Amino acid sequence: MPIVDYHCHINPQEIFEDKQYPNIAQLWLGVGGSGFGDHYKWRFMRACGVEEAYITGNAPDEERFVRWAQCLEKAIGNPLYHWSHLELQRYFQITQPLKGDNAREIYRQCNEKLKDPSLSVRGIIRQSGVRLICTTDDPVDSLQWHDKIAADESFDVKVLPAWRPDRALDLRRADYTDYIGNLSRVSGVRIECFEDLKAALRIRMDYFSKRGCVVSDHGLDYVMYAPASKEETDAIFRRRLAGQMPDAEEARKFICAFMLYMGKEYHDRDWVMQMHFGCSRNNNGRALRTVGPDSGYDSIAGQIPANELIAYLNALEEEDRLPKTILYSLNPNDNALIDTIIGCFQDGTAPSRLQHGAAWWFNDHMAGMTEQMESVAGIGSLAGFVGMLTDSRSFLSYTRHEYFRRLLCRMFGQWVEEGMYPADMEALGQIVKDISYNNAVRYFGFPLEEA
Amino acid sequence: MPIVDYHCHINPQEIFEDKQYPNIAQLWLGVGGSGFGDHYKWRFMRACGVEEAYITGNAPDEERFVRWAQCLEKAIGNPLYHWSHLELQRYFQITQPLKGDNAREIYRQCNEKLKDPSLSVRGIIRQSGVRLICTTDDPVDSLQWHDKIAADESFDVKVLPAWRPDRALDLRRADYTDYIGNLSRVSGVRIECFEDLKAALRIRMDYFSKRGCVVSDHGLDYVMYAPASKEETDAIFRRRLAGQMPDAEEARKFICAFMLYMGKEYHDRDWVMQMHFGCSRNNNGRALRTVGPDSGYDSIAGQIPANELIAYLNALEEEDRLPKTILYSLNPNDNALIDTIIGCFQDGTAPSRLQHGAAWWFNDHMAGMTEQMESVAGIGSLAGFVGMLTDSRSFLSYTRHEYFRRLLCRMFGQWVEEGMYPADMEALGQIVKDISYNNAVRYFGFPLEEA
Amino acid sequence: MPIVDYHCHINPQEIFEDKQYPNIAQLWLGVGGSGFGDHYKWRFMRACGVEEAYITGNAPDEERFVRWAQCLEKAIGNPLYHWSHLELQRYFQITQPLKGDNAREIYRQCNEKLKDPSLSVRGIIRQSGVRLICTTDDPVDSLQWHDKIAADESFDVKVLPAWRPDRALDLRRADYTDYIGNLSRVSGVRIECFEDLKAALRIRMDYFSKRGCVVSDHGLDYVMYAPASKEETDAIFRRRLAGQMPDAEEARKFICAFMLYMGKEYHDRDWVMQMHFGCSRNNNGRALRTVGPDSGYDSIAGQIPANELIAYLNALEEEDRLPKTILYSLNPNDNALIDTIIGCFQDGTAPSRLQHGAAWWFNDHMAGMTEQMESVAGIGSLAGFVGMLTDSRSFLSYTRHEYFRRLLCRMFGQWVEEGMYPADMEALGQIVKDISYNNAVRYFGFPLEEA
Repeated sequence: MPIVDYHCHINPQEIFEDKQYPNIAQLWLGVGGSGFGDHYKWRFMRACGVEEAYITGNAPDEERFVRWAQCLEKAIGNPLYHWSHLELQRYFQITQPLKGDNAREIYRQCNEKLKDPSLSVRGIIRQSGVRLICTTDDPVDSLQWHDKIAADESFDVKVLPAWRPDRALDLRRADYTDYIGNLSRVSGVRIECFEDLKAALRIRMDYFSKRGCVVSDHGLDYVMYAPASKEETDAIFRRRLAGQMPDAEEARKFICAFMLYMGKEYHDRDWVMQMHFGCSRNNNGRALRTVGPDSGYDSIAGQIPANELIAYLNALEEEDRLPKTILYSLNPNDNALIDTIIGCFQDGTAPSRLQHGAAWWFNDHMAGMTEQMESVAGIGSLAGFVGMLTDSRSFLSYTRHEYFRRLLCRMFGQWVEEGMYPADMEALGQIVKDISYNNAVRYFGFPLEEA
Repeated sequence: MPIVDYHCHINPQEIFEDKQYPNIAQLWLGVGGSGFGDHYKWRFMRACGVEEAYITGNAPDEERFVRWAQCLEKAIGNPLYHWSHLELQRYFQITQPLKGDNAREIYRQCNEKLKDPSLSVRGIIRQSGVRLICTTDDPVDSLQWHDKIAADESFDVKVLPAWRPDRALDLRRADYTDYIGNLSRVSGVRIECFEDLKAALRIRMDYFSKRGCVVSDHGLDYVMYAPASKEETDAIFRRRLAGQMPDAEEARKFICAFMLYMGKEYHDRDWVMQMHFGCSRNNNGRALRTVGPDSGYDSIAGQIPANELIAYLNALEEEDRLPKTILYSLNPNDNALIDTIIGCFQDGTAPSRLQHGAAWWFNDHMAGMTEQMESVAGIGSLAGFVGMLTDSRSFLSYTRHEYFRRLLCRMFGQWVEEGMYPADMEALGQIVKDISYNNAVRYFGFPLEEA
Repeated sequence: MPIVDYHCHINPQEIFEDKQYPNIAQLWLGVGGSGFGDHYKWRFMRACGVEEAYITGNAPDEERFVRWAQCLEKAIGNPLYHWSHLELQRYFQITQPLKGDNAREIYRQCNEKLKDPSLSVRGIIRQSGVRLICTTDDPVDSLQWHDKIAADESFDVKVLPAWRPDRALDLRRADYTDYIGNLSRVSGVRIECFEDLKAALRIRMDYFSKRGCVVSDHGLDYVMYAPASKEETDAIFRRRLAGQMPDAEEARKFICAFMLYMGKEYHDRDWVMQMHFGCSRNNNGRALRTVGPDSGYDSIAGQIPANELIAYLNALEEEDRLPKTILYSLNPNDNALIDTIIGCFQDGTAPSRLQHGAAWWFNDHMAGMTEQMESVAGIGSLAGFVGMLTDSRSFLSYTRHEYFRRLLCRMFGQWVEEGMYPADMEALGQIVKDISYNNAVRYFGFPLEEA
């Protein structure tokens, strides 16, 4: 089955420029400070006691790779072990396990292969069977690289933008007014009140829509419900523009109002709303200052307030403007909670209109993925699930779709062996194809044929 | 082994009248607005995107059944798949998997069978090997159908009432004073203060006792402990009778006082106290108005405050009036919490005097049931478990006992294969028989022989 | 592989005196009121409905043993079944399952064996392959038994003290000022302010260090972060010395200040900080009065506030004084939370500098241990795990290391069979040896050779 990667963090510029990576260390470990890098691998190396110089620091690439190989050898039970070896097998045809003592040899083999056009960014995407990619983009982004890719007839994989307005939402950030200034410039709307902000966002949503955007994404502490009057919300926003930071409850009210507005807009545009929540970020203050954000210093937060999530969804439903929604919690204890909550808002407008998103980040391992799917199956409808996404910054991560499909099929195989579902290969095959690809095509309304 | 179904929601009138269902759609999907129906199936159909007309609406029964079959075909990993096919096999001798394309044929076959006396309500109960049923009844209920069934010598299955005083407890309901009026009428007690309420409830408990009631049930947000003086509790109740709604803390205090009183009464009468908690009800306001309550719009709530549950149990224990108690949480994250808490109140008065109830509602699937049993086994004494109950509104649900017993025996078989328990079939058989039937007979003190 | 038992609650006096237990009932069930006893077994007997006289009461030892055997027979799925039979097999060469009807015979066989020198306390330790034991000791303890054991050349197993200053921390206890008086006496520091308390503790830490102590332990409700000024902390402590109980928030502030100070001291001394939390103690007031504390009336508490744990660790990290730390939560729902949080504080100073402690107490069963290891593996580095500890009061508990190692190897074997890790016996063997023994030797810096 082909791949539709409906949520990831790859850089569209690198697709347009068809970047060729100079070596496997750059591709796998990235470089500190460049904004790119695989914080999964960085965390694992730190857990193994490797010095930061070999992780995000200035050590030579080959030495960094050797350190990584020494760590990987010990990574039993960690998804990095499986991901890394799948990538070596599928893209580099290397089937030996990577260890400290063959690291330099494998480093040379990989780097040799990386010169081949099949391992340019576009080459990787093509050979992976990818039909469509949704990147993650800020409302102020010009989307120039998306335009250039769309105009390039030599590349027929669709690369669509996705709307992620976190910086317009989070008025607790120090640079919020600067951001609003940028948004004002690109939208042409002078932003002095909450209605102005909405107008500017609508203009940008139209801009995204014209480029094929059909999906949004939000990174939230948790889904809040703290309703406030129009006037109160507006006053909080105006004070923030004037430089006055909101207190915690004011921030909750503004965020709630913002998300209620966004949800309704998504509904009216038939966009899908994705919400990622349950993360505690930048837990290590020293590392934040020395290594920077998104470098492997985040964790799961506590459990979400279920009543606020319910109230938020219901507030949209009461106005008949609840969009198709995918909920991703970083806390694996939320599985059953989410599955039972979304079941309260399903209806005849679409199969699995609300979705429990695939196991995310720290849960994106064998047990976590299997438990998410068992929960969806046991409480809701697994056959309607839109399935896997890479959520990745790396172009080699398409193998995670294979990993997911193997776990899915293994689970089905076990159920059939146990007599829990008949050995009806046609029915099973259709469900697997749907979860792997067709459901996502239909759910998001992507301009693709079913497979 | 025979079945003792110590907690369910079936209608005793239908037992007395020995109702014969006209077709399998009515039996499986019920009819909207009649108060009967299988909200599990309704939710699943909504998750599959079926229009409400075919779920609780006015679409013809056969069409509703066909839609259901189309959904069921996709229900891999959902307990509905197993329950439905077990029911088809055991009661209708249909062993084909039900699918969209054989739905009309199976509809005809089932409806033909349903004319047979073996598939009247009593026929189903008899052929299922049921020895005793506890229904769920309000304190004001006349229990006339229980009386009639008891007087009918042609039917030897015991149908006992169970005491569920939720409406006497929940003074936050709009119709609370009306209810108290009803309670006053049936008890003959003029209810003007909390002591009067207790007196009225005692009279009704005597009435239930005379009809064989030995078990109560409560649906609670969570088990509260908010102790208040007699005077304060009484004042809250009096104000409510005068039409003044309690605030949240007053409601907690009243509910705590009510439950403390009930617990002591149960202890003194040797009744079992069941508590179901952890549910968030009527999450979808529009659906509540259009489809009604108990129609599939409920979810798990957040985790319970462990300290209040502990304090409540301890308050009864301090007076040596803690009754036999079964705790059911809707949140599967509470498993270990409940098992460790009940372990603090076990003693020589009865084996497994406090029980962790079988996996309930959204957890009533393979993984949920297995995890509940593993938790009881790992932390407490599984051999003392009172086992399965249907908690169902449907007369076909007795197969859930078979489902439970299969999971139980599968788990034991795996442990024996792994060398975790000897292959001592006599010992294993006795434990299985006890969990399946004998423990419940002994624990509740039902007038039945052990088997 | 040998055993290093880096955390337990055994009595060093019994090691020095090389106690010989008179019978298996005393060894397994202990005696009520003596401070020794196996509350796991006691709880299980209560869950089976055994009268307290046969548990912690005055019934004859043989009768207590017979009751225990009758219960054990039913303990399917409980770790007590496995522990007890492993102990019978390894130390008594009894391979029959213990049941009610062979209990008297096995009682005689065990008691006969117990006369043998191989089953004295030292004999048990030696034949178990134990190289080093860390007991759990109060700062005021003279450590005389440790000194005597160290001076005894006939016994070459190291028995080191571990620092557990719970009584110096918990100013909510009624006897706190008495305790501070004791601490003052043994340290020679007149304690009138918080600085004095710190000085006294430092003197005692030096005393412990001289006897080989390299590890601390704390029993906490949860890891608190409630920062207060030096002056405020001092004022709370002074008021407590003057007899004024702190309120809840004051207690939190003092405990936080105490733990911040301790953490820094541990860092500077290169001691490991262990934190056990998530327990609700003495839940049954009547049993506390009649049977006493630590007798099987504790439970899991609710989930921990993740943000406070993060903030506490970060506060130490900000000063570059975060020690090696092992976190043990009694709540199995905290597994992923802990593994993601500790990953934020790993660095090049040591492999797995922060550790997620082995499944503890109520989680110390097959499922709990396996889930803890799967979580460590899936999110962090299992290969760096310091592995098992007995945490036990019993000298027969060394078999729990075998139990742990079997579960570890079973998990690895399954992964290899599933193709999740290569069948590289050398690599696998090294990881198993490290988790079983070498990691602990290196991590704590014990004066032992690797094996």
